[in-house]
Amino acid sequence: MLKTLNVGIVGYKFMGRAHSNAWLKAPLFFDVAAKPVLKVACGRHEPSLKEFAERWGWQETQTDWKKLISRADIDIIDIALPQHLHYEIAIAAAKEGKHIFCEKPLAMSVKQAEEMLRVCEDNKVIHYLNHNYRRVPAIALAKKMIENGLLGRLFHWRAAYQQDWIVDPEFPLTWQLRKETAQAGPHWDLNSHCVDLAHYLIGSIDSVTAMSTNFITERPLADEASTGNLQAEVNGSERGQVTVEDAALMIVKFANGVMGSFEATRFATGRKNKLSFEIYGSKGSLTFDLERMNELMFFSSSDADDTQGFRKIIVTEPQHPYIKSWWPPGHIIGYEHSFVHAVVDFIDAIENKKQVTPNFNDGLNTMKVLEAGLLSAQTKQQITLNT
Amino acid sequence: MLKTLNVGIVGYKFMGRAHSNAWLKAPLFFDVAAKPVLKVACGRHEPSLKEFAERWGWQETQTDWKKLISRADIDIIDIALPQHLHYEIAIAAAKEGKHIFCEKPLAMSVKQAEEMLRVCEDNKVIHYLNHNYRRVPAIALAKKMIENGLLGRLFHWRAAYQQDWIVDPEFPLTWQLRKETAQAGPHWDLNSHCVDLAHYLIGSIDSVTAMSTNFITERPLADEASTGNLQAEVNGSERGQVTVEDAALMIVKFANGVMGSFEATRFATGRKNKLSFEIYGSKGSLTFDLERMNELMFFSSSDADDTQGFRKIIVTEPQHPYIKSWWPPGHIIGYEHSFVHAVVDFIDAIENKKQVTPNFNDGLNTMKVLEAGLLSAQTKQQITLNT
Amino acid sequence: MLKTLNVGIVGYKFMGRAHSNAWLKAPLFFDVAAKPVLKVACGRHEPSLKEFAERWGWQETQTDWKKLISRADIDIIDIALPQHLHYEIAIAAAKEGKHIFCEKPLAMSVKQAEEMLRVCEDNKVIHYLNHNYRRVPAIALAKKMIENGLLGRLFHWRAAYQQDWIVDPEFPLTWQLRKETAQAGPHWDLNSHCVDLAHYLIGSIDSVTAMSTNFITERPLADEASTGNLQAEVNGSERGQVTVEDAALMIVKFANGVMGSFEATRFATGRKNKLSFEIYGSKGSLTFDLERMNELMFFSSSDADDTQGFRKIIVTEPQHPYIKSWWPPGHIIGYEHSFVHAVVDFIDAIENKKQVTPNFNDGLNTMKVLEAGLLSAQTKQQITLNT
Amino acid sequence: MLKTLNVGIVGYKFMGRAHSNAWLKAPLFFDVAAKPVLKVACGRHEPSLKEFAERWGWQETQTDWKKLISRADIDIIDIALPQHLHYEIAIAAAKEGKHIFCEKPLAMSVKQAEEMLRVCEDNKVIHYLNHNYRRVPAIALAKKMIENGLLGRLFHWRAAYQQDWIVDPEFPLTWQLRKETAQAGPHWDLNSHCVDLAHYLIGSIDSVTAMSTNFITERPLADEASTGNLQAEVNGSERGQVTVEDAALMIVKFANGVMGSFEATRFATGRKNKLSFEIYGSKGSLTFDLERMNELMFFSSSDADDTQGFRKIIVTEPQHPYIKSWWPPGHIIGYEHSFVHAVVDFIDAIENKKQVTPNFNDGLNTMKVLEAGLLSAQTKQQITLNT
Repeated sequence: MLKTLNVGIVGYKFMGRAHSNAWLKAPLFFDVAAKPVLKVACGRHEPSLKEFAERWGWQETQTDWKKLISRADIDIIDIALPQHLHYEIAIAAAKEGKHIFCEKPLAMSVKQAEEMLRVCEDNKVIHYLNHNYRRVPAIALAKKMIENGLLGRLFHWRAAYQQDWIVDPEFPLTWQLRKETAQAGPHWDLNSHCVDLAHYLIGSIDSVTAMSTNFITERPLADEASTGNLQAEVNGSERGQVTVEDAALMIVKFANGVMGSFEATRFATGRKNKLSFEIYGSKGSLTFDLERMNELMFFSSSDADDTQGFRKIIVTEPQHPYIKSWWPPGHIIGYEHSFVHAVVDFIDAIENKKQVTPNFNDGLNTMKVLEAGLLSAQTKQQITLNT
Repeated sequence: MLKTLNVGIVGYKFMGRAHSNAWLKAPLFFDVAAKPVLKVACGRHEPSLKEFAERWGWQETQTDWKKLISRADIDIIDIALPQHLHYEIAIAAAKEGKHIFCEKPLAMSVKQAEEMLRVCEDNKVIHYLNHNYRRVPAIALAKKMIENGLLGRLFHWRAAYQQDWIVDPEFPLTWQLRKETAQAGPHWDLNSHCVDLAHYLIGSIDSVTAMSTNFITERPLADEASTGNLQAEVNGSERGQVTVEDAALMIVKFANGVMGSFEATRFATGRKNKLSFEIYGSKGSLTFDLERMNELMFFSSSDADDTQGFRKIIVTEPQHPYIKSWWPPGHIIGYEHSFVHAVVDFIDAIENKKQVTPNFNDGLNTMKVLEAGLLSAQTKQQITLNT
Repeated sequence: MLKTLNVGIVGYKFMGRAHSNAWLKAPLFFDVAAKPVLKVACGRHEPSLKEFAERWGWQETQTDWKKLISRADIDIIDIALPQHLHYEIAIAAAKEGKHIFCEKPLAMSVKQAEEMLRVCEDNKVIHYLNHNYRRVPAIALAKKMIENGLLGRLFHWRAAYQQDWIVDPEFPLTWQLRKETAQAGPHWDLNSHCVDLAHYLIGSIDSVTAMSTNFITERPLADEASTGNLQAEVNGSERGQVTVEDAALMIVKFANGVMGSFEATRFATGRKNKLSFEIYGSKGSLTFDLERMNELMFFSSSDADDTQGFRKIIVTEPQHPYIKSWWPPGHIIGYEHSFVHAVVDFIDAIENKKQVTPNFNDGLNTMKVLEAGLLSAQTKQQITLNT
Repeated sequence: MLKTLNVGIVGYKFMGRAHSNAWLKAPLFFDVAAKPVLKVACGRHEPSLKEFAERWGWQETQTDWKKLISRADIDIIDIALPQHLHYEIAIAAAKEGKHIFCEKPLAMSVKQAEEMLRVCEDNKVIHYLNHNYRRVPAIALAKKMIENGLLGRLFHWRAAYQQDWIVDPEFPLTWQLRKETAQAGPHWDLNSHCVDLAHYLIGSIDSVTAMSTNFITERPLADEASTGNLQAEVNGSERGQVTVEDAALMIVKFANGVMGSFEATRFATGRKNKLSFEIYGSKGSLTFDLERMNELMFFSSSDADDTQGFRKIIVTEPQHPYIKSWWPPGHIIGYEHSFVHAVVDFIDAIENKKQVTPNFNDGLNTMKVLEAGLLSAQTKQQITLNT
């Protein structure tokens, strides 16, 4: 009989749903090391919480996260909340010896991240930071190809994460647009993903130069109850100041000499959720686009010289990472599947007492790059990272 | 408290998994009219069946489908088996008043299909035939666009369903390659999907001309226990005759004057599961490719004459069919989601006592076209359908 | 000093321009075996002819093609006219010992084609039929790859040639829409290209089944003077019968067992001049699309099994056919360049007294397939070719 | 009878050919305001020069450019040489009252450019700088669409110019890799194109931050005679220092608030000559890729909300810029055609005594941005432009 692990989740909106689905689906498709039990769902607004718990099969509800954390029967705390709420909960959970499955971005600052990591390490808990894109099969395959030397020496990283959900000046001032709850705009929300991927695929970053801007500086206030998703509603006629950037550019040098660029924006009309990157090396190149997340483009200069070209690898075959647990060849998977992969590997780490990545250390490294970016945009100078 | 419907499933391989996932997932993401209960799983090989039932949460198992069907507490029979097993089970289930969720293709012949439809109608059960692609959001959108007149008068339908899983001559003689279990090859398995889509999007077919061929005529015998999926294994050194075609072409005229073509093959190296179609009309055109199932290409001659072009609609927005129950804009879904949509609509049909499509009547119409195709390939003449 | 060859051209519209450009450009970019001299331009409407000759540098003009052909100083007759005018001129030119550069399709019938070929052979002239797409570098590369065995045993040919220039019912009844001047519609004009390519890339065709249709049966009469191009003008209010098909489908078997399909239409809204084909073989596959004529897609099952995919070969490198005479790597060429390649090879054939392909023999073989298609569409039966 | 203009060209390598072709082809396809006469070709290596002149039809040759410039019968000086040779020749030509058709990049510095512009203006000559991509029809269409407001308020410019011709460390030290002849690497050669397009499509640039790097610092010396093209040959075993960058990144703010990024590299394995850009505005977006130079992608948020998407405009229709002089709809053009368009417009400017763009003033503005980029890369600070 498979061992079980009791999960307590904090948060029940977009990420609450995505995580719940992953906890449920992992043991159906994968041979997990232990079976997660959806034990307690926690959130402040009780009627919404109850409805969420009933739909997803969480056995109990709890409106005070401190009580949740102090329960002896909980093995895992799943933090499915905005970044300004991660620090306090993660520290408390780690002190209670809970393993942590934390949404990204890790925290509001390097300082918070450092302490979160330290407490986790002191308490020997498994800590996972949900930069889920590492577990998109196409990206996991890219990692493997780079490690196997298919690209040779790396030269370039070029990434963009483009959305368009706030192009309308009447889109309200949700928590993502205020510094006190978000720290920064797409630079924090979107660049954190791309920096994590860059660390994963390329290596550590040495120096950073950034630039950011605002296209819309004032917006109507948001209805707080609706701010958990991208279809937020305006609350009344009052307006407030947008206190995070609308778009950010960042150019970097990696320790291994690679040059990199990052573009993050919420003003790319027509791009709903487009994360793309290009990697160029001496023997080959890779490009990826989240809008076609089941595909990886690969150029190899080892191919015969008259038949070279970027080839579209449809990453849906049994020999590709994670795929053989899903469907027969050629059947694509969707956005939420990467969360399932994360749950599988996180459980495996707990059961085998090894660390999973990305974790709080990876998150800390990302925070360092992002903070350097904020400083560079302010000082208009290149910032060297002390790493 | 939501009403429940007890489901009994027959079959536990590829389609057994896909259906189980759909029964489980439908109430998580959609507001279903009744909640399906995974009551009984049925199959012949008990150890495999038990393992399947435990993993997916089927409450009981049963190795005799006749016993399953006679149970008073079962509301729905889900037939997740190869086509040669549909007829007997469906007839029996309908006579017991069970609603039927049946895998495609419907049957082995027009004759079987006619009787299956008649018995279902006599017993007033809801019958659904799982041509799941109708519920891919991009295809449901195509249907809506055609109905809204965005394409004007229709001229052309051009479809292909291309796979490559038997290019290797050593791939064994699985049930799909034998007439007694499959009736025909890709013409039955793949063209049934495309004919169903053509009926859905274009209309009824008047005349058919077809051609088929075999590239490999003998193959090693298959290990029966492994034949439920595409990674079948060879059993011994004996060989047998391939008794269905390897590829089939079909050209047709529709009642409304549209010309159509169908290509179905298992010998298209590099195509794992590529269903594609093109539709051309007097005001616009559409193309679709299952390898990029979240996209629909649309050309409109109503656009300004210097900015016309095929546009890639990424069908992941709340205003698109089925999408708002899933994720925020720009987050793609995968292959299995169309099964969830089918379950949602099937349950709705049961609760609201209305018919769902595609059903056995649609399946019968598809059988008529496919049988005409077999006859045409044999007689080398055009066959006119009596419809 | 380079030898010269005197060219006399008949026709000065779309093809007259495309050919003139090719005669001029060939010696600029290529090391031709002899230099073509633009000696005489011939056509019936003298003012238009004069303007054409002056612009393109034809030294003389002539309104009677018989006089042109009888001139001793002419080496090459370039027939840049509609198909109903090819037979008489080609026969006469060959009898005068002129080498012939003839626009496609070759003729109005197999009977004409047989005689044209015979007279050319009897008079030992070089005869070239301008199915120019064979000399698109991407297609020439495809040929080489197939010959080198990169695709293994061939299984499938799937071609379509799609245009939309007569979707508007008010487009007038130009010569292309009347049987006496065109013999057939897209089946003759467009399928001739695709059949030629199929012969080139796959081999000879054994049996043919076809279907055709008309979407618009009557159209306004055309202003004769404007019928040389696709922007024809209506002449008055009278209407006439369309006497060729609007679209044609054809499915075939090749002598080597390959199955093939052809689709030709002028009613594919949004497709201006889209010729596309797919070829599937046991070791690899190719696809081509004239809208992106500098690209060839190639799948190889010899690639490592986790990095296989269709690769986009941008056919603009010095190692690709014809390219090193043009520009540095990565600089694309356009439609008219294939005509230049044809001129280069045709001149080479003349100077080296060898036959060039495609020639009238190839044209004859294409006529046989097309005529069989017409017969099949009429009789609704499969036609076997006697080859 | 059409007026003529006598052209004297300096340079006979890649650009000498491209320009010669343009002078020849312009009057064939376009109704030019005056007919260019290929009068004198000028270059230092007489045998190569003679061969070039003979092939392309230049009537005379001249090895001393000063003598060429002093000839009274020359109307136009075409400078088809590397940038370090532009300054002296352009100044001298302008002083002689010659109109100037000059290859890009304009010069080695802002200082040179300022003087070149001043002397041209003082002498009232027409000066054209050949950033030919402005006259790719797809880009000319983009300009028109932006001017017509189809994109609304602009937010983002994202450009990359990627090549891979020096990835091999044994590629020799050609003039493009040495500061004294090239001033900089891809930042000068490639970014000059992208900055010109950004000026054209977006507007003027206010501030610049840049970063550059070298991947290979020493290379074999080049055979001087072979350095005019990309297939240069090594000369002996000696090595020299690469004194320009291998890759450069630049992020900018435009005067109108748009954020921009530029990436230029010769180390993007698999990219032969890929210039791509993305423009995002409040009402729509555009993307372009030189590898598919006949296409422009356009997203409009004015489309119905369930059928929005990036549409591929194939820019080959009579209503598109420059196209109606070429071929019927759907026939693509190639790289060299943009040079023909430039010649047509340049001649028109001469005859109508108006200025053409881009000219030396545009070139000067580009030099200012590029120099600021060099300074920023050195100082690691943002540079504000005084404009």
